[in-house]
Amino acid sequence: MKALVLLSGGIDSATALAMAVKEYGNENVYALSITYGQKHSKEIEASCKIASYYKVKTTYLDLTKIFENSNCSLLKKNNLDIPLGTYESQILNSDSKTISTYVPFRNGLFLSSAASIALSLECDYIYYGAHSDDSKFDAYPDCSIEFNKAICDAIYLGSGKKLKVVAPFIGKHKSDIVKIGTELHVPYELTWSCYNGHEKACGKCGTCIDRKKAFEINGLKDPIEYEE
Amino acid sequence: MKALVLLSGGIDSATALAMAVKEYGNENVYALSITYGQKHSKEIEASCKIASYYKVKTTYLDLTKIFENSNCSLLKKNNLDIPLGTYESQILNSDSKTISTYVPFRNGLFLSSAASIALSLECDYIYYGAHSDDSKFDAYPDCSIEFNKAICDAIYLGSGKKLKVVAPFIGKHKSDIVKIGTELHVPYELTWSCYNGHEKACGKCGTCIDRKKAFEINGLKDPIEYEE
Repeated sequence: MKALVLLSGGIDSATALAMAVKEYGNENVYALSITYGQKHSKEIEASCKIASYYKVKTTYLDLTKIFENSNCSLLKKNNLDIPLGTYESQILNSDSKTISTYVPFRNGLFLSSAASIALSLECDYIYYGAHSDDSKFDAYPDCSIEFNKAICDAIYLGSGKKLKVVAPFIGKHKSDIVKIGTELHVPYELTWSCYNGHEKACGKCGTCIDRKKAFEINGLKDPIEYEE
Repeated sequence: MKALVLLSGGIDSATALAMAVKEYGNENVYALSITYGQKHSKEIEASCKIASYYKVKTTYLDLTKIFENSNCSLLKKNNLDIPLGTYESQILNSDSKTISTYVPFRNGLFLSSAASIALSLECDYIYYGAHSDDSKFDAYPDCSIEFNKAICDAIYLGSGKKLKVVAPFIGKHKSDIVKIGTELHVPYELTWSCYNGHEKACGKCGTCIDRKKAFEINGLKDPIEYEE
């Protein structure tokens, strides 16, 4: 059995990679790391380090052009400030149901790209790190349980029943992921989550807040450095 | 209301485009044309001509890298012969459940790319031309009714319920498409279906056979030229 893991460089996907490597062995696991026009290259650098740590072959893909008309605040071309505060406060202060850091249908696009590549590499599984904290308040609808079920079906059926999507953290919290990953000795010091691309993580954007909380709940110290 | 139409340059997608233009007006319709490493550029040239005929803005996307490991016979890099004969005969003569012209999860990938772009352009609908003749004998599992339902759900849910997929020919035959398209005066002389990239269509590959039959059933002459 072989697996392809969507690797963004954050703690969720790094933990998903660790699970796949434990299950199938690193020689049977591939990583897929996708650039989409982000403000910074910290995520890609982190995924490169993590893939190297686990000694898995990695495909790098650039899908920036697909988002050339998107007004998402994560995109470099838009030169917008990343909103601070929790996802909840951002949703409450927004006219839209989604938030400015929602990259249009990103998980659907990335999973579909992974499906085309995984079939070519004769993989049986695609792993990705979606979890319930990201779909709270409908912040990221492409992280929800309902979306996950539909895209799993689409990939299974559209691949001629050859490919299954594994989302080990669906329904779980980020703190559960840190717990699992700590038991697996995931090198969290190599990961990057912050939406800003400064030297150290900002500690104030939605994903920094969630990340810090996930370590705190487990009584652990996040091994990366923050600006304050 | 605005729509994005997946335009491959063949008769199915040209007819889907005609339907969207009739429904929303050409100023509210966008086309998306995707290169994926095909043997020839005839399809892209055809989609360019059709988009120009209908005066719709078109996005061109190159996803060739995603298929760099695929052994699909449609890909230029593989330098394989396109199998001749009907899809049925190809399936019967193959060890695999899918056929050599199956591009791994192509429709899923193209629809997901369309979803990301359509959301950026504030479209309400994505149109694509899948029909039942392509999913007969499981030749192309990503054209089936079951796949269509799942990917429609995934795109609707993953977009925060903003985007719907319209597959007007699901459950219909290619001959039904030609009937609808003829009533809409679709310029079929501008379309290209053949898997080979010769000056004229070969008339012998699976898609040529299906195309010719679709016109014959309607008692119509296919306006393009064939090698024999």
